[in-house]
Amino acid sequence: MSSAVTSSNMAAAAPVLNPELANRVFNCLHDIGFDGLGMTRPSYGEGENRAHALFEDIAKEHGLEIRRDWASNLFITLPGHNRDLPEVMTGSHVDTVPCGGNFDGAAGAVAGLLILCAWARAKFQPERNTTLIVTRAEESVWFPLSYLGSRTAFGLLPAEALETPRSDDGVTLRDHMRACGAHPELCGRASVLDPAKIDCFVELHIEQGPVLLEADVPVGIVTGICGSTRYRSAVIHGQYAHSGATPRRFRSDAVMAGASMMMALHEDWKTVEAADEEMTLTFGVCQTDPAQANFAAVPGRLELVIDIRSRDEALLERMNARVIEQARRVEAEFSVRVDLGPRTQSTPAIMDETIQAQVKDLALEMGIPAVSMASGAGHDAATFAGQGVPTEMLFVRNENGSHNPDESMEMEDFLLGAGLLERLLRRRASSNG
Amino acid sequence: MSSAVTSSNMAAAAPVLNPELANRVFNCLHDIGFDGLGMTRPSYGEGENRAHALFEDIAKEHGLEIRRDWASNLFITLPGHNRDLPEVMTGSHVDTVPCGGNFDGAAGAVAGLLILCAWARAKFQPERNTTLIVTRAEESVWFPLSYLGSRTAFGLLPAEALETPRSDDGVTLRDHMRACGAHPELCGRASVLDPAKIDCFVELHIEQGPVLLEADVPVGIVTGICGSTRYRSAVIHGQYAHSGATPRRFRSDAVMAGASMMMALHEDWKTVEAADEEMTLTFGVCQTDPAQANFAAVPGRLELVIDIRSRDEALLERMNARVIEQARRVEAEFSVRVDLGPRTQSTPAIMDETIQAQVKDLALEMGIPAVSMASGAGHDAATFAGQGVPTEMLFVRNENGSHNPDESMEMEDFLLGAGLLERLLRRRASSNG
Repeated sequence: MSSAVTSSNMAAAAPVLNPELANRVFNCLHDIGFDGLGMTRPSYGEGENRAHALFEDIAKEHGLEIRRDWASNLFITLPGHNRDLPEVMTGSHVDTVPCGGNFDGAAGAVAGLLILCAWARAKFQPERNTTLIVTRAEESVWFPLSYLGSRTAFGLLPAEALETPRSDDGVTLRDHMRACGAHPELCGRASVLDPAKIDCFVELHIEQGPVLLEADVPVGIVTGICGSTRYRSAVIHGQYAHSGATPRRFRSDAVMAGASMMMALHEDWKTVEAADEEMTLTFGVCQTDPAQANFAAVPGRLELVIDIRSRDEALLERMNARVIEQARRVEAEFSVRVDLGPRTQSTPAIMDETIQAQVKDLALEMGIPAVSMASGAGHDAATFAGQGVPTEMLFVRNENGSHNPDESMEMEDFLLGAGLLERLLRRRASSNG
Repeated sequence: MSSAVTSSNMAAAAPVLNPELANRVFNCLHDIGFDGLGMTRPSYGEGENRAHALFEDIAKEHGLEIRRDWASNLFITLPGHNRDLPEVMTGSHVDTVPCGGNFDGAAGAVAGLLILCAWARAKFQPERNTTLIVTRAEESVWFPLSYLGSRTAFGLLPAEALETPRSDDGVTLRDHMRACGAHPELCGRASVLDPAKIDCFVELHIEQGPVLLEADVPVGIVTGICGSTRYRSAVIHGQYAHSGATPRRFRSDAVMAGASMMMALHEDWKTVEAADEEMTLTFGVCQTDPAQANFAAVPGRLELVIDIRSRDEALLERMNARVIEQARRVEAEFSVRVDLGPRTQSTPAIMDETIQAQVKDLALEMGIPAVSMASGAGHDAATFAGQGVPTEMLFVRNENGSHNPDESMEMEDFLLGAGLLERLLRRRASSNG
């Protein structure tokens, strides 16, 4: 790949990102989270706390302003000349899934820190406040509440969600927050982010799929964040019966019914793709009951998880209708009962077209190869977009996906992405219009 | 249903089966095995021992001869006039799967006991020795050795099988046998059954499927016992990847590959049925890895168990070739690796046509509705047939399948089946030719 951030390019831009600082922070985050195999920094847990403290310490070293909201989201601000102008924001999360990698989330938070530190060192003061938000609980493995930290920052967390029990030991979110120095008692009363006072939010993140790698391009310019339709606890109820003694016409075979349903929806996916529409369809969990299933029995139960994602809300609705249709079809065809269980969904988030155009211009100017692409995964940026904040995301090439110890982002790619982000934020923050 | 065993019919037949004795034995077996929900009488365990002791006690009460072989199979004999003639045999097992029913196996053993006791009470002495074998370890849940007891009775158990560890606690089969009063040290040295000295073996068993129930007929005349081809530990290896961030062309989706393979083989099954060939195809276990699978990841692993049964050995081979073909096809189509694991198989057993004709004649004579049918499940009778002994099985109508607490055989049906068995054994045992 070409290292386009040459010294001559950067000469025009006063502040210079410090690769040593990036290495230092990634190494510290590694030490904080390493569990012997991968990174474990649980949301509202010890690892996330220590990562937050690390960011706070470095920000203080550089004379940046620090504040925390009631939910202990961390805000690091470099003040602008005019504090009344809507501020420029960037940020991401530093928690991880269990045994995850070191870059999912952290890359975006480190990029923001690098930028503000570079500006502070160069004594660059923009027109607008520029703020890095290090969110809490984006992964939120213990508490099934999506975008927990960023939603809380906007006052979007319903008070009753504080009573959510941790999935393993039942300790409530409220108690976890309190143990982390947050103030759950202020929920609904403390001041929160006002979308009208935010000029833009731009989040850098590693790509969690192989698109950039295959395209041989270091940076992705995100066009939108997929919404989803999910059935996280679908069950096909059949009838256990002796595998040898039960002819086909007498069977209620949950596995065959499930296979038939999955293949039919898979064919739908191919049709959608052939029409140049974007979506993904995944049955991530598919399992018979370990306590009852055996080699000599027609399976009487199959659990399925159905996950459909797209930036196109109408397509999500169409596919959802097909899921229901297929469930009814296999019920009739295989003499089973399909209980899809509760549907959960999230709305697609559209990225701001003006910012996308700015990023494209800057990438061209800086000689950084970049392609436009959708984000199949959800991110804190979706919360900002949902609040009407002009929002954009930059992806950095990454091998082996995310949520595993093998996440692999080249530091060279990271510095290209962070450099592009710096130029974008600088342009936005320098505007007083 | 019509109770065809009327007193006038039975008047021609001196010995009369005693329904009270049948009830008494079934009730005792229930008390021995009841685990709070179903029956648990594990092979070479306490429950099987007590059931064997029960049969021995009742046989002694009726003056029948008792012997045990080195593996503690129980033989109950009513001596014939000519002890040198090949003997007539019947029998079945009294062990169960965990939380099974009270009739699988036991029905056949009780029928045999009822017949010998009736003969003894009526002082009926046939030409030939007539022997009930109450086998050991037909279900053999702890030790994965099929037809363990009956194979041992013919000296077919390889000595090294004695070292098989029990699946849960590792105690060897040898130690279990010894604790049950058997003599594993005699393996390979003690005398065993000689097929040439057996006139026939006829086993009564509950039907384990719904065929007789649907046909509204109390008794089935078995034409053959299905053989099988199995892959008990097939694994499809894919690649875990973010469900939203991984387009279809980059996926190695183990579940989709599995669904495609299962559906293709299911279509083959329909084709086989359309050609009036008999088989069953079952994927009794189908599961993603609970430790790694989640709603947001393309599944990287699927475990499958494949069970194919038929009386037609050539068809089994053809289907096995299709399994391998389909595995190769989905490897190419879904970028996965299919490891079918070891193939296990059992040979179909053909039932004796002369005996089948005799049973049909007797059923007609006695006014007992009966239909010919295959046995999809394996039974001790397959061991006898495999040794060249003229073998036959009678099925008794039973609701809700077997291997579960809801096995439901009507006593009226049982007495029809046992009555038919009695007439058949009497005819065979009365022949001195």
